Amino acid sequence: MDINVDMGESFGRYKLGNDEEVMKHITSANVACGFHAGDPLVMDETVQLAKKYRVAVGAHTGLPDKQGFGRRRMDITPEELRTDTLYQLGALDAFLKVRSMSMQHVKPHGILYRMVAEDERYADAFLDAVSRYNFQLYLFVQRNTLIWERGKKLGLKVAAEILVDLSYDDDGNWVLERKKKPRSPGEVAERAVMVARQGQINTISGNLISARADTICCHGDSPNAAEVVKKIKEEYERLEIPLVKISES
Amino acid sequence: MDINVDMGESFGRYKLGNDEEVMKHITSANVACGFHAGDPLVMDETVQLAKKYRVAVGAHTGLPDKQGFGRRRMDITPEELRTDTLYQLGALDAFLKVRSMSMQHVKPHGILYRMVAEDERYADAFLDAVSRYNFQLYLFVQRNTLIWERGKKLGLKVAAEILVDLSYDDDGNWVLERKKKPRSPGEVAERAVMVARQGQINTISGNLISARADTICCHGDSPNAAEVVKKIKEEYERLEIPLVKISES
Amino acid sequence: MDINVDMGESFGRYKLGNDEEVMKHITSANVACGFHAGDPLVMDETVQLAKKYRVAVGAHTGLPDKQGFGRRRMDITPEELRTDTLYQLGALDAFLKVRSMSMQHVKPHGILYRMVAEDERYADAFLDAVSRYNFQLYLFVQRNTLIWERGKKLGLKVAAEILVDLSYDDDGNWVLERKKKPRSPGEVAERAVMVARQGQINTISGNLISARADTICCHGDSPNAAEVVKKIKEEYERLEIPLVKISES
Amino acid sequence: MDINVDMGESFGRYKLGNDEEVMKHITSANVACGFHAGDPLVMDETVQLAKKYRVAVGAHTGLPDKQGFGRRRMDITPEELRTDTLYQLGALDAFLKVRSMSMQHVKPHGILYRMVAEDERYADAFLDAVSRYNFQLYLFVQRNTLIWERGKKLGLKVAAEILVDLSYDDDGNWVLERKKKPRSPGEVAERAVMVARQGQINTISGNLISARADTICCHGDSPNAAEVVKKIKEEYERLEIPLVKISES
Repeated sequence: MDINVDMGESFGRYKLGNDEEVMKHITSANVACGFHAGDPLVMDETVQLAKKYRVAVGAHTGLPDKQGFGRRRMDITPEELRTDTLYQLGALDAFLKVRSMSMQHVKPHGILYRMVAEDERYADAFLDAVSRYNFQLYLFVQRNTLIWERGKKLGLKVAAEILVDLSYDDDGNWVLERKKKPRSPGEVAERAVMVARQGQINTISGNLISARADTICCHGDSPNAAEVVKKIKEEYERLEIPLVKISES
Repeated sequence: MDINVDMGESFGRYKLGNDEEVMKHITSANVACGFHAGDPLVMDETVQLAKKYRVAVGAHTGLPDKQGFGRRRMDITPEELRTDTLYQLGALDAFLKVRSMSMQHVKPHGILYRMVAEDERYADAFLDAVSRYNFQLYLFVQRNTLIWERGKKLGLKVAAEILVDLSYDDDGNWVLERKKKPRSPGEVAERAVMVARQGQINTISGNLISARADTICCHGDSPNAAEVVKKIKEEYERLEIPLVKISES
Repeated sequence: MDINVDMGESFGRYKLGNDEEVMKHITSANVACGFHAGDPLVMDETVQLAKKYRVAVGAHTGLPDKQGFGRRRMDITPEELRTDTLYQLGALDAFLKVRSMSMQHVKPHGILYRMVAEDERYADAFLDAVSRYNFQLYLFVQRNTLIWERGKKLGLKVAAEILVDLSYDDDGNWVLERKKKPRSPGEVAERAVMVARQGQINTISGNLISARADTICCHGDSPNAAEVVKKIKEEYERLEIPLVKISES
Repeated sequence: MDINVDMGESFGRYKLGNDEEVMKHITSANVACGFHAGDPLVMDETVQLAKKYRVAVGAHTGLPDKQGFGRRRMDITPEELRTDTLYQLGALDAFLKVRSMSMQHVKPHGILYRMVAEDERYADAFLDAVSRYNFQLYLFVQRNTLIWERGKKLGLKVAAEILVDLSYDDDGNWVLERKKKPRSPGEVAERAVMVARQGQINTISGNLISARADTICCHGDSPNAAEVVKKIKEEYERLEIPLVKISES
């Protein structure tokens, strides 16, 4: 199993997340590319941290809206999405190149994750950018979405992800709680184990649904992110669930 | 001789320059990278135009200040300059990569051109970014400046440029006229010929000074930019001065 | 009749529109407030032009998206719209205050015009900002829209506007032509006269529909904007249709 | 004595400072206006907090550089400074107006504080904006600086401030320590008392220098800001040093 977390979301004077602590326990870092979060200095520092802790790096591309943190839907054109994506992929790659690293994956951020999952014009624009830019990139998305199907069809390496610190409903969709209830590290780790071992997750109504994942995601900006990923890692080690970056699995 | 012009300076609804007409007559395009001007859509269109007219592409990197068009000095740190430069180089490269093109050169824009020419901390930060990112890039700067010397010493391909549509004083520095007097295409072409043939240019006081250049630059945002470069090209052809992109000279 | 045109849409080095020429022929200027277009320097210059030509000034508030020129829908919250609106109203008022002028009206720009016309959460947030900020402001919107009704109910001065240089369908909605066909000044002036005299406008299918207007709008960023408003003014004068700013009608 | 603290420096998802806790113990809030920090939503919330705790509000105007937090000097023109200042003053005033509050003071932020203190072109541009916008505003600056003198001459209400949580050298200038040593609340409170009672402060070399102040400033973004201002307030109360907002002193 691979664990991916959003990293490099600080911006100038504004610090977000405890990236170094989290890096110690994960295998894949989704690095913000300066559109919804991050800036060049932060990107460089984040790439160096990933190198230090042997964490694989992916591009966490987002909408051009720092004030909204990439969470406000914008009616950009598919051409804008295609070129915004290329721009961000290239920008991050520069930092990897000068550290002799290569990009492992790409994952759309925030509302863009939804937009490419549900709207075929956006899915196609995003896939066009990714596949032409670097056909070797893994694409981290939700299983069985429109972009998952289309990415597979194109021959891209598509990795299904489960967000183990969010709640799911019986249809397999996240439930965004109005007041985000912080989950204990133990509870999240238990869910992470269930996903890894059984390919299942329990829902808000108490049922179990299928949740086959190639990678699990925790949110890096929650206050206890470092504790959560540390606990997951410990549980995986205890239960001998191999923890490897997706490109080495 | 190589002719370079700033291209891709439009931004969203804001159009600047007549890029397609200018592209027909030049050999190297300095493409804005979204910091002082440009946006991802404009960058992609500009790269396509360059491909269509077989013009070599360079990164025209600038300060992060669209309102000031990269002309207002900002006390960024050298680390910020280094990472801002990497970010912009990578971003442009993505558009070149998906068109199977490669970057020929890099040229700092606006006040950054001065900052790296005069301040060694900035010169070194800029050279560090460029040389580690792609040692094959040509660097377009003013001859005998601090960055010119240091670039040479590093072993980088440093190309001296003369701005044939600006006035020079007897010390070889540009004179920024308060009211920019538009020069006629014929006059600029005459200066371009003198630079190519004699390695000299006349100054505002009427003297001739040394002006050895590997590439000449005209400003793409002047109203008659297309006419000017057309005239230069015609004069060069008439006088059998070879016009080739610097990477093929 | 009042004629309103969008003004002050330049941004830094980027010039848009021929504001001084247009100002000579209109009665109300919608001044961009730095969100979708404009910047503080441009706002100050535009306010001075309005003063010089005795044109009334209104706030042309927009979404925070200069790259998209306020034309890309963004899922901002109503609270964000309310506070973005207050911010822009206040910012413009500062320039008016130091010139001893007062604000006449407010008009939402671009896609925001649609958003407040169609979505009651946005309509209410916008009206809340405007009415609490300055109850004397005229609100320029399309007749019979949701915001028109609600503004009336609140007791605000709501002015109906017709966009005489756009095409309408038989339901009274604009038709945004894929390729914007530039209309001749004469044709637009003829439509402006018909609106003023008959309260009607002809549609793309050749019918006449009701088009009662308190103010007519022409687009300031079309290449022949100055000619168009000049022609309208001449026709109004010839036909003795009084041309007065709405606050003096 | 008046205590002023920078407030409203959060931006979108990025939270900075513990504004509500700090508000309980101060008399004047310097509210960021969206240029170096803050956004419309944050400004509105900050104004509401100030109202709740009966704290006077001032405009904390800055350079247009959120990434640099207004700390990177930019060679803006005096005209740009004048219009940037008006824009920010007006924007903040809108939020005050709808809460039936009025602006008490203005204080330039970060490097702009230095720029207007040292460069007469900037001092004059800033004073022109402030004095024409609202001649009743208090101006918070360092005593005996160029802007202090010129503001006095103009007849503006100029308030001298001392930054009690920074170190001073024997010439009365701040010393920006490379590693900001956090001062204990007790130590800062002791300095605040000395300023209030004796008009003196001790310097890094152990001397005492004159430090007559109308208002003292603590930094709101230090981790223990709330504790520090609480302690100052307690010490002032204990020693019966009256703590009143400057406009009521």
